[in-house]
This record gives sequence, structure tokens and C-alpha cells, in this order.
Amino acid sequence: MTGTAPVPFTADDYKARMDRAARQAADAGLAGLLVAPGPDLVWLTGYAPPAVTERLTLLVLAAGREPVLVVPTLEAPDAEKATGAPVLALRDWTDGKDPYALTAALLDGRGRFGVSDNAWAMHLLGLQQALPGTSYVSLTEALPMLRAVKDAAELERLAAAGAAADAAFEEIRNVRFSGRRESEVAADLAALLRRFGHAQVDFTIVASGPNGANPHHEAGDRRIERGDMVVLDFGGLKDGYGSDTSRTVHVGEPTEEERRVHDLVREAQEAGFRAVRPGAACQDVDRAARAVIAGAGYGEYFIHRTGHGIGVTTHEPPYMIEGEERPLVPGMCFSVEPGVYLPGRFGVRIEDIVTVTEDGGRRLNETERGMVIVD
Amino acid sequence: MTGTAPVPFTADDYKARMDRAARQAADAGLAGLLVAPGPDLVWLTGYAPPAVTERLTLLVLAAGREPVLVVPTLEAPDAEKATGAPVLALRDWTDGKDPYALTAALLDGRGRFGVSDNAWAMHLLGLQQALPGTSYVSLTEALPMLRAVKDAAELERLAAAGAAADAAFEEIRNVRFSGRRESEVAADLAALLRRFGHAQVDFTIVASGPNGANPHHEAGDRRIERGDMVVLDFGGLKDGYGSDTSRTVHVGEPTEEERRVHDLVREAQEAGFRAVRPGAACQDVDRAARAVIAGAGYGEYFIHRTGHGIGVTTHEPPYMIEGEERPLVPGMCFSVEPGVYLPGRFGVRIEDIVTVTEDGGRRLNETERGMVIVD
Repeated sequence: MTGTAPVPFTADDYKARMDRAARQAADAGLAGLLVAPGPDLVWLTGYAPPAVTERLTLLVLAAGREPVLVVPTLEAPDAEKATGAPVLALRDWTDGKDPYALTAALLDGRGRFGVSDNAWAMHLLGLQQALPGTSYVSLTEALPMLRAVKDAAELERLAAAGAAADAAFEEIRNVRFSGRRESEVAADLAALLRRFGHAQVDFTIVASGPNGANPHHEAGDRRIERGDMVVLDFGGLKDGYGSDTSRTVHVGEPTEEERRVHDLVREAQEAGFRAVRPGAACQDVDRAARAVIAGAGYGEYFIHRTGHGIGVTTHEPPYMIEGEERPLVPGMCFSVEPGVYLPGRFGVRIEDIVTVTEDGGRRLNETERGMVIVD
Repeated sequence: MTGTAPVPFTADDYKARMDRAARQAADAGLAGLLVAPGPDLVWLTGYAPPAVTERLTLLVLAAGREPVLVVPTLEAPDAEKATGAPVLALRDWTDGKDPYALTAALLDGRGRFGVSDNAWAMHLLGLQQALPGTSYVSLTEALPMLRAVKDAAELERLAAAGAAADAAFEEIRNVRFSGRRESEVAADLAALLRRFGHAQVDFTIVASGPNGANPHHEAGDRRIERGDMVVLDFGGLKDGYGSDTSRTVHVGEPTEEERRVHDLVREAQEAGFRAVRPGAACQDVDRAARAVIAGAGYGEYFIHRTGHGIGVTTHEPPYMIEGEERPLVPGMCFSVEPGVYLPGRFGVRIEDIVTVTEDGGRRLNETERGMVIVD
């Protein structure tokens, strides 16, 4: 079952995004944007090189000028096939030529440019050397919310990805946990995500017992036992948009303390969700969830931020973190995922993707948030 | 069949590599090296974060000082498990703290540093801002040959990876090509690489008929027909080290022209291989192969360099390209892969990995280089 494929994005969609990005850059006082392969380039043009190598590929966007994609000659045939290719100019360069000189000729030599966070340092150094009068700022620092507000077509894809992840949870809660290795349950989860339409699985965390106390534990050789708490955190891309949800299940009956901590995290997640509304600051979501956990005396065991944005990646701005004062805007999508991690013992995390609506928030994950008992 | 696993690298191996890198950096006038997640970090420490995110992870190496790995607190438990962890100091930072200030405190504020090619531009900008008196050069520009000369344990791994790729070719030449899609043969190739011990498949190019004229075509929906030339180019990582080999096969009997072009590329590949010896310049290998093709009037159809290094990646320095005057040194490993690409018609590429010996070169791929006829 993979559901219905969404209506594909068109060259016009990409043109609108490139125009908007160039305008926002100009408004921010930038001479342009330099976009490297990765999620920004996919979002702006539909183009993802088959492999990212040391050869420079870079989209140059500036308000009022035709977008130009600098691309290795070898990769030009692939780039020409991208949906956004008809609305940009390709400039290819062959091995042995200087791609920085080629790019520099497209840039204002005194300008300040936004550059993709994940552009290679090597390429930034090449441009800084070719044009010593230029300056640079990371794209996320310059235009942190460039991709943050999703339009209706994007929201539809994120909701479908969330529903697919939920369908995977409904299946996984019925498989056997005790006596199996974390890695086996993780393989089940990956297969389920694919079965429900994910083309890419980004992570399938299965963190049992003490492993649950490490929020970045993936899945290992540990055999899950009766009495274990198990953090499940999984997601990937379906039709180009991300899913990411966590539930913490228990193998057999939990102790009173395990139930209390789980209830606490659930309450914190609910508080974070309730803080979502247009105009609230991102940090308000973090504060709301954190206050619940800190109030119960577990503050030092909640060792990460409350959430991150999601879109063409499973991990992007906006971040729900202390100090992020920018306001929530309808159409933003992000995780609300507080957790408590008791070193050497167990961990609990509960996570939904939430989108900001006109008057509050709407969850894109709807599976049971109370503690699910598994075998 | 996966063969025998090699003896694992030890913390001492990583310490020796880090010491050597720090010494080379000092000799090159650098105050240190800043190494981001990726092949350099794997080679130096054995550590590969489960995922590369916007959170800063950076190894700081400076001659005479203990190596320090700056790492997000969330990922510290994983980093601690790396084989190289016992011979370096971990400095972790939590969400909300400034990782650039933490890193800056470890650096000479007037120094010049080598930074991983693929470090995120965002992180380089963060360091440039935190320490305006510093300057940077990409690691490949500063120490291009840092990982280029392989020791005996590395050579053993590369030879085993090459033998596994050769075993995959011996199987694939017997499968049916005509009537099947490129993508199906590519899937066979990927399965064979895994069967012969590859943990990671990086590429399985199956470029039939006119697709063969695009050197970066991967594998698509095209059905292979009798009379097609088919470029096969495949590789990945086995026990942490790379394979990469190309052969061009023909479905049924080739035309006289196809045979002539194939013979020409084979001769060029042989000439490139014969140019390999200590003290020759990298560009000499390119020139030797190119001279053969240009001499036959096909020079304009050989549109890429002749080769690239291989090690913990399938694509790294040294490059066999015009202008690369650095000398070949025993232990270097790289591809020799000339090709001829006739637009809209067909392409031919023949590729072996070659290592520099004390008095010449040794191929790590040994399958038939004459034209193999397939069904």
C-alpha cells in the first residue's frame, strides 16, 4: 500500500520558490543566494545530483536576474532533466577549469551572499579567494524561515507521510519485542515505512532498557527483555516530504515509576502542543514542555531541545529551543518531542509532528500517546 | 561469501595517523587541522556519526597537543565508542550553547588552519566570525596527499575490495542483458557486490546504447537490446575500503566501429597503466591515456579526467588530471579509466584500480579487458 501519489510540482512551482527566495534575500540586504546540493536545492529546483562530490554544483539566485545553475559538464545531462531546469540557465564547467572563476563572474564582487549551510567549506574558500570583497552568511542565519512555512501542497505531503508513519506504528505495536534484538525490530520498522510508501528511511531508533537513556542511540545488538521500556523513533521521506514520530512502549507491565515518567513526558508533550499558535515564539513551545518536566524534578534529564522543523528533510528550522524568539506562523511544521533520560536505566520520548494553523496547532501524528504494552 | 575479515585497526593505528597528520600540518605552516565528519574523520579516528546534522562535530589536531573532538552532548555516547576515542579528548556541548566559542578556545587566534573539504560552510563561517584573525585552507589543498599513500593494512583491504568487485563482474557477464531494464541489471550488480562482502554499494552504473555516451548516467528504465554496448561501472565499500571498476560489454556481436573504439579505449587504459611508476607526475597518467585517444582522432570525446584516488572513499585525491604535477608515490591507489563517449550513440569506459609499487604499478582489478560478449 503506498497511497495515492500527490500531484507533481511543476517548473512554475519552482520558479515561484526561486523568485520568493531571491526577493527575501534582497529584503535581507543580500546580493544573492548561493545554493549547494541538498534540501535547499531540491526545494528550489527539484534537482538532486546523483552523488555529491568535490565538483562544484551551485545555484546562484539574485533578485531580478535569471537563476543560474553552475554544474559540472559530466552532470549537466542529469541537471537538465530536473523539473526546475526550464526556468533556470545552466552553466557547465569541465574538469581542469576553475569553477570559482566561472561563479565569480556571476556575482557582485562587493556583495554579501547567503550560502547553503551544508555547502562544502572548500567551495566557500574558493569563492572567498576568487572574490575577496564579498562576504557570506549561512542561509539558515540569513533566511532561517525560507522553507519553514509550507504551502497546501507541501502540507498534504507532510500529512500523508505522518499518516504512513502512524500506520507503521499500528503494525509494530503488534510484533514480538521480547527476546528479539533491537536491530530486528528496527528492520521491521524500516520495512513497514517502505510498505506504507516511504522511498527513504532516515532513522529507525529502537532503544531498549538502558539504551533508551541515550537519545541518539539507534538500534543495536541488545536483546529486548520483558520489563524493558523501548523508545521507538522513526521516519523518512514519502513523496519527498518527511515523517518523524516517537512512541515509548513497554514490554509487559511497567513499574509505578516507569508509568509516572511516561505520564510526565506525555503531559509535557501535551503542554508543548498547546503552546503552538500563530505569534507565539518558538521558544515558548520548548518552555511549555520543559516547565512540566522541570516542575516534577526531572529537568536535568531532559537534555535536548523540544523540536525541529520538517519538510523536504526530517531535520531543519524552525527549532523549538530556548533563545529562538522568532514567531510561529501558520503553515510551519515541526516536531514536539520532549523526553526524560535516566542514565543507565531507561528513557521516554513522545513525539508528534505539529503544524501551525490559523488559531493553534494540528497534529500530523495521531497514534496512542498513552503507554502501549507490547509483547 | 564475504571472505575473511581483516584485522581491525587499533587505537594505536589511529594515534599514529593523527600524529602524522598533525606533523604534516605543522610542516605545511598550519596551526592545525579541523576535521569534520566524513572520510577524513573516519580515517583519523574510526568515528562516523550516525547522521551528519547541523550540530557541530569537529576534530581539532595540532602538533604536540592532544587531539580534541568537539561533539554534541547527544552524540557523545556514540563518539566514546569509536576505536580512536581512547587517544583523544572529547569536549561535548549541549543545544543552546555556542560550539564555535568552545572550538575557538582550542585554537590559536592568529593561526592558519586546514579544514575538511566537506565541512559545512555554516561551521566555517561560525569559526571565521568567532576568530577573525584566523585563516583557512581546504584540507585537500593544504595536504592533498594526506590519505593518498596507503599502508600495508589499507592495501590489503583495497585489494580485497577489488577482488570482490571482480567476482561480481564474473557473475554479471553471465546474466541476461537483452530485454531487461538497466535498473534490473544494476540491482543484480548491487546484490552481487553485497554477496561478495560489500557493506555499502556506492554506484552501479548500467549505461546501455546511447545512455553510455553520458559518463554519469546511472541506470534507468531503458530496456537493453541486442546490438547495445553497455558500460558497467560499479563499486562501494568492503571492510571500510573502496572498489571501483568499469567494463564495457556488448550484447551480441559488435560492429566493426564498436570494436575499434573498444580496442582504442583498452589501449589507452593500458598506456595509462604503463605510465604509473614512482616519481611520474599524476598528469603523466592522464597524458599517456589521452594521447592514445587523441591520436586516433577521438580526443574531443574523452570528456573527463583519467582517474581519481580511492581509499576510505571511492573518490578522493590524487587525481590523474592535466595540471596535477605532484609525483606518484608507492602505496598510492587510484583509478585508470579512460573513455570515449559518442553523443546519441554509445560509450566505452574501461577502469581498473592501480596501486603504485616500488618500480611501476599493480592492478587491483584483473577481469577481462577485451570486449566481453553478453546475452
